[in-house]
Amino acid sequence: MFEPSGKNVEGRLGNILEIAQAAEVEIDAPCGGRETCGKCRVIVRKGAESISAIRDSERRFLSDAEIEAGYRLSCCAYITNANELVLEVPPESQLGIQRLLVGGLEPTIPLSAIVRKLSLRVPKAEIKDLRADTERFFGAVNEHLGIATDSMAYETLKALPLALRESEWQITVAVRDKEVIAVEAGSTADRLYGFAVDIGTTKLAGYLVDLNTGRTLGTCSEVNPQVKQGGDVITRITYAMGKPRNLAELHEELIDAINHMISDVCRKLTISEHDIYDVVAVGNTAMHHFFFNINPKSVGFSPYTAVVGRSLDVRARDLGLKVNAGAYVHSPPNVAGFVGADAVADIIATEVYKAEELTLLVDIGTNVEIVLGNKNQLQACSTPAGPALEGAEISFGMRAVAGAIEAVWIDPKDMSVGYRTIGNQRPKGICGSGIVDAIAEMFKAGIISNSGEIRKELQTPRVRIQDRVAEFLIAEKEQTAIGKDIVVSQQDLRQIQLAKAAVYTGVLMSMKHLEVELGDIKKVYVAGAFGTYLNSQSARNIGMYHDLPLNRIRYVGNAAGAGARALLKSTALREVASKLAEDIRYFHLGNEPDFQKEFLNALYFPHRELERFPSVKRLLGIS
Amino acid sequence: MFEPSGKNVEGRLGNILEIAQAAEVEIDAPCGGRETCGKCRVIVRKGAESISAIRDSERRFLSDAEIEAGYRLSCCAYITNANELVLEVPPESQLGIQRLLVGGLEPTIPLSAIVRKLSLRVPKAEIKDLRADTERFFGAVNEHLGIATDSMAYETLKALPLALRESEWQITVAVRDKEVIAVEAGSTADRLYGFAVDIGTTKLAGYLVDLNTGRTLGTCSEVNPQVKQGGDVITRITYAMGKPRNLAELHEELIDAINHMISDVCRKLTISEHDIYDVVAVGNTAMHHFFFNINPKSVGFSPYTAVVGRSLDVRARDLGLKVNAGAYVHSPPNVAGFVGADAVADIIATEVYKAEELTLLVDIGTNVEIVLGNKNQLQACSTPAGPALEGAEISFGMRAVAGAIEAVWIDPKDMSVGYRTIGNQRPKGICGSGIVDAIAEMFKAGIISNSGEIRKELQTPRVRIQDRVAEFLIAEKEQTAIGKDIVVSQQDLRQIQLAKAAVYTGVLMSMKHLEVELGDIKKVYVAGAFGTYLNSQSARNIGMYHDLPLNRIRYVGNAAGAGARALLKSTALREVASKLAEDIRYFHLGNEPDFQKEFLNALYFPHRELERFPSVKRLLGIS
Repeated sequence: MFEPSGKNVEGRLGNILEIAQAAEVEIDAPCGGRETCGKCRVIVRKGAESISAIRDSERRFLSDAEIEAGYRLSCCAYITNANELVLEVPPESQLGIQRLLVGGLEPTIPLSAIVRKLSLRVPKAEIKDLRADTERFFGAVNEHLGIATDSMAYETLKALPLALRESEWQITVAVRDKEVIAVEAGSTADRLYGFAVDIGTTKLAGYLVDLNTGRTLGTCSEVNPQVKQGGDVITRITYAMGKPRNLAELHEELIDAINHMISDVCRKLTISEHDIYDVVAVGNTAMHHFFFNINPKSVGFSPYTAVVGRSLDVRARDLGLKVNAGAYVHSPPNVAGFVGADAVADIIATEVYKAEELTLLVDIGTNVEIVLGNKNQLQACSTPAGPALEGAEISFGMRAVAGAIEAVWIDPKDMSVGYRTIGNQRPKGICGSGIVDAIAEMFKAGIISNSGEIRKELQTPRVRIQDRVAEFLIAEKEQTAIGKDIVVSQQDLRQIQLAKAAVYTGVLMSMKHLEVELGDIKKVYVAGAFGTYLNSQSARNIGMYHDLPLNRIRYVGNAAGAGARALLKSTALREVASKLAEDIRYFHLGNEPDFQKEFLNALYFPHRELERFPSVKRLLGIS
Repeated sequence: MFEPSGKNVEGRLGNILEIAQAAEVEIDAPCGGRETCGKCRVIVRKGAESISAIRDSERRFLSDAEIEAGYRLSCCAYITNANELVLEVPPESQLGIQRLLVGGLEPTIPLSAIVRKLSLRVPKAEIKDLRADTERFFGAVNEHLGIATDSMAYETLKALPLALRESEWQITVAVRDKEVIAVEAGSTADRLYGFAVDIGTTKLAGYLVDLNTGRTLGTCSEVNPQVKQGGDVITRITYAMGKPRNLAELHEELIDAINHMISDVCRKLTISEHDIYDVVAVGNTAMHHFFFNINPKSVGFSPYTAVVGRSLDVRARDLGLKVNAGAYVHSPPNVAGFVGADAVADIIATEVYKAEELTLLVDIGTNVEIVLGNKNQLQACSTPAGPALEGAEISFGMRAVAGAIEAVWIDPKDMSVGYRTIGNQRPKGICGSGIVDAIAEMFKAGIISNSGEIRKELQTPRVRIQDRVAEFLIAEKEQTAIGKDIVVSQQDLRQIQLAKAAVYTGVLMSMKHLEVELGDIKKVYVAGAFGTYLNSQSARNIGMYHDLPLNRIRYVGNAAGAGARALLKSTALREVASKLAEDIRYFHLGNEPDFQKEFLNALYFPHRELERFPSVKRLLGIS
């Protein structure tokens, strides 16, 4: 929401896009204000009379209902006078990074970390008081701190006698629930950290949290090192079954990578790993099992069941994690073989379990988890989308980092291509959201058919055949940072078709299974790093999203990571998560009778039945 | 108790000793029936009129009260007719091995082992039942077994998926209290064992117990490998403080020795170590700390406090013990720095805590623990006796194994020496009880003064000077298995003086501290392997025991080991033990005002104040 002055950067009255840029409000406008991409949407909340009339180019991208609701394309809407004006930039038009903030990365929760630290003085051993260390210690803890505990880990016990005597019986204890997990000489209560990690099939994301304040102090990420044993979970599970050492190998390389992340973020913050007293890990069921070194075979083969369905608390050192010796790793429950602890973390972060209205939560990664419901009931399923949406297994695919093409615009008149890269650098490749955008534009410009074929007959040098495979040129090598043309190939299209059909069919089956209509869904959360830079219209135009009002969509970024942090900060939420997993009704997509048919139809752009996408139909000028 | 036929081995009427031997009732009679050692005591319970009259040689060894009570020396008492006769062999006259049985090695307790095994069938994973393994497992456990548990060790969890599928979902679980510690494919409920170990400063004793029946199936023992770092606990604690690795070294060699014992006893019984699901370990506080790898410094230096005062349950694998991965080691509490878990085990085995009458419990080892009290109150203290009573640091000292001289008899007329060895082999040395017996006989025969000096002026070739040190010849090299004379040296005497004074003074101070008299003590338990072959009269005659009626003494052998086995078999007793440790009033001998003076007086044979030993006074013919 912002209130523009009506002046553009040069100080004259201008269009809303220019004025927003002057006010440093970032609106997504990949075509640069040429009125042809339709992406720079704003909603006029106050002062519509001070804005120029609707233009034809706007009508092409906006439905009547949207126009009625105040939607404009910011590049087409000029401010005619300087009266009071209030504009909103809807989520679908906000630039990537902001979405994370706008979407609300994590719920506001009262801090109630399971581990707390307390300083106290223990009475000294002397002739008049010959009690054993354990007795004097627990006596003091119970008396001074009011904690009725007599439980202490063996490793902690070993540290007790020296800790007591090192600082003249002045100590600090770390207490986890009712268990003393650490005893330290002196006063160290200010050093209390937790680490949350989201173990994605492709990417690991870590967060260092100050458990005294709840603040996230640092983040870190790495590629999941297991990608070398297979891009998807089934390949990795098959690998794990190969030789007796293989499972341990997958487990250990994951632990090594996480240890590396921990040491990295700690070094940057000049924090000691030993001051990390709690860890929360989330991941899909297979990643969960690899992390805990649990045989994942049942996850990979019919009937695809998890070994662990409940929350798990294991000593971090038993897994080889290099944090405080007394620390535990907590994982929320897995719901099913392919709806894991990460989906539960998504639900915690987005608070779908509290929602009044019917809410759809889609976490898009190599695997897509789909949750549908509200506070009364929640249903979950999952579908494999492959790594294409994360930029993998795509000709010029790359992760969403600096230099990745994240937005594309194609002028249908001359097939000229505009694009924007992350960090405005020379392009190195295309990230997942970039390829979705490119394909949506290609489809809109008629470069590909609704069955996903590149039209080789088109008279443009951008459509060409390379090694007998058709491709479309996005960026010429002279413009790129890699000295090569960046293209979208027919094979890339097939990958994206499979991925987007998986998402669409998963959502469709979810609605059918819950017996609800598209119109019943009042809110959609899109989670996953992929969504960060994604253009909603493009996702809808290729038929990945259903044709629903785009302002219902909220991008919540790595909600699983946010959920993991929430579980680190709140003990109460751990119980909520455990209860959730019991209550969520899982259904197996593969068992749904229409699944195959619907999936095949969804491979089309946007769908074999265009009637299901009235917005796209209008966009294409089909009546 | 036995009813003799009146016939000796040759079939004629004989003395009771001969008749008992014919009936294979073993009565201790080291002088071989020559009426001079006074050790072959029996009590006539029925038929006194059928036995010859009291002889003068008997009056020398028996008090009027004892004669009144029916005591006779079996070698002096002839059966005069074959009427019904019932005789009792009092504990002090029973031969070693039998004492263990007679003394009641362990209390009769209902079997309630903390670990139990149960077989069940778990519903199979299938399309209609997609629950995770944990959910179907705990569901089945709760439903079929009525155990409300949801707790499972991480290591066990890892074994779950394979165990479930290996035998068609037919499994056996080992449940410890409320925690599932093992899951095994098939039906293995019959294989459920426990291991109890008594960690002595000098010796380790282990017991393999069938937890389904409570039966002890096998025993094993080893020398505590830590003796090479020091014979007593203080030396070892000092060693542990030396270099950082030293404590770990002491810990590891102890664990290695125990693992060796376990694998040994298992091999003999063709049992797998993995079928040991529970371990109980007892030891003095220092041994306890070494076993658990806990810094023992505070135990070794004033004010001599323990680190751990409560019972401890640690995963056996965390200590490196090679038993089932889910097994725990339990240790009862330590009472104080020098009254450890072994003393608590002694109390459990002897049930002193239930006693109506005032009871004295003395566990004689390198360290001596003294417990005095009854069901209303218990008091404990300890005193170091050194290893002499265990046969160490004595010229020809050895452990009480085959070839050790265990009993000695000296004819005061000609100083001729008789002895008996364990296993009736040629002598290799003298064990602790043998040296006590030898010294008692030397004192009785006037070879040593009451201050413990060997009388060099005696005209006998058995008293001689070797390297300026006086010694007394027990066995000539022609008789021994070692090709050397076996002697008792003046230095040996000093060692035993220190040890016996420690025991005496400890008991004396215990009585003073509790404000009771000798006559109030109705029962005495002597624990420790040392007592197994000990002659009570000799122990009294040298002043190690107080002058109390010897029939009050019960030898209970390794009561700590028996207590450990009892704790293995009974969960209820673990709680009794924990409660005990809280209730026992520990007092520090060194803080008692008269301790030094009394100790010095107790160095004499039997005591500086002979009035305290009327029996010895009579024996010596002093009126």
